[in-house]
Amino acid sequence: MRVFGIDPGSERTGYGCIETDGRRQRLVACGAISSPAHTSFPDRLLTIHVELGRLLAECRPDCVAIENLFYATNVRSALKLGHARGVAMVAAVAAGVTIAEYTPAEIKRAVVGYGRADKHQVQQMVKLLLGLSAAPTPHDAADALAAAICHVNRADHARITGEVAGGRRIRTWRDAKPSDLGL
Amino acid sequence: MRVFGIDPGSERTGYGCIETDGRRQRLVACGAISSPAHTSFPDRLLTIHVELGRLLAECRPDCVAIENLFYATNVRSALKLGHARGVAMVAAVAAGVTIAEYTPAEIKRAVVGYGRADKHQVQQMVKLLLGLSAAPTPHDAADALAAAICHVNRADHARITGEVAGGRRIRTWRDAKPSDLGL
Repeated sequence: MRVFGIDPGSERTGYGCIETDGRRQRLVACGAISSPAHTSFPDRLLTIHVELGRLLAECRPDCVAIENLFYATNVRSALKLGHARGVAMVAAVAAGVTIAEYTPAEIKRAVVGYGRADKHQVQQMVKLLLGLSAAPTPHDAADALAAAICHVNRADHARITGEVAGGRRIRTWRDAKPSDLGL
Repeated sequence: MRVFGIDPGSERTGYGCIETDGRRQRLVACGAISSPAHTSFPDRLLTIHVELGRLLAECRPDCVAIENLFYATNVRSALKLGHARGVAMVAAVAAGVTIAEYTPAEIKRAVVGYGRADKHQVQQMVKLLLGLSAAPTPHDAADALAAAICHVNRADHARITGEVAGGRRIRTWRDAKPSDLGL
């Protein structure tokens, strides 16, 4: 199963695609979509639309995982964020991919085990879970991967047996030590 | 000049295209895009995207006029509205059409002459300005036409001489009587 996570934003939209065989999760691609400074807002949205369309065609995921937002600092930032999120959703539906939505707390709980984890802890746990040599940057990419991991964990929960072959394999946050997360 | 107005909304997106020769404004097309009840939110957004793309290709406007929103009842409705507006903007930029944004007060002032006019007054004035036999319905279509009229009036302001050939021609809200608007 391939899951493509999206962390939408008008300034920068993070994305991260992972693959799982039901036992291990592997990074396929991650990064962030942004536009040069002074790009108009509509052109920024078009870049998100076009780039996500291209990435989804390349990665061919089975599902898109995206944060479900019900709040924002204020109405103005909610409107702005809504624009980017709407464009991301259309890119997914247009590519024929199912969308799964999770609240920020659900994602953090699935990845770090704590619904109020900070961005650094999410980055560190994503690094551990995917066996990366460095934490994914920018944090938008890590947040997108976290959404994807959350979806995989939910879907695989019943199937994961917890078998660990050789050494300490971190498959969910429960396998991690507090020190892994800087806690 | 052809101007395509959009009044975005996740439940219903109004649109209205008008044409002007610099003297008179003529209706090209208007209506509202909506999805059957129980359609999922992402599918609603896709319908807006696809339908607007089709309409813009048909109408081939020189400009898209859209309400510039800085407020909403609450953060949740702002997020929802933002999704629809973002999708509408992408449809316009993807069609290669320039976007002009006006605040609701600017649009009402341009059409009714009063920034706090209600939906009924906007519908009546749109009917008069475009010489329609009935007020455009639903009100989302009238609001979209109002945005387009606002853009035309702004653009034509310097060029309109106010010449009236035969009878009382209503070209801007200044030519209308209060009774035309139910005031």
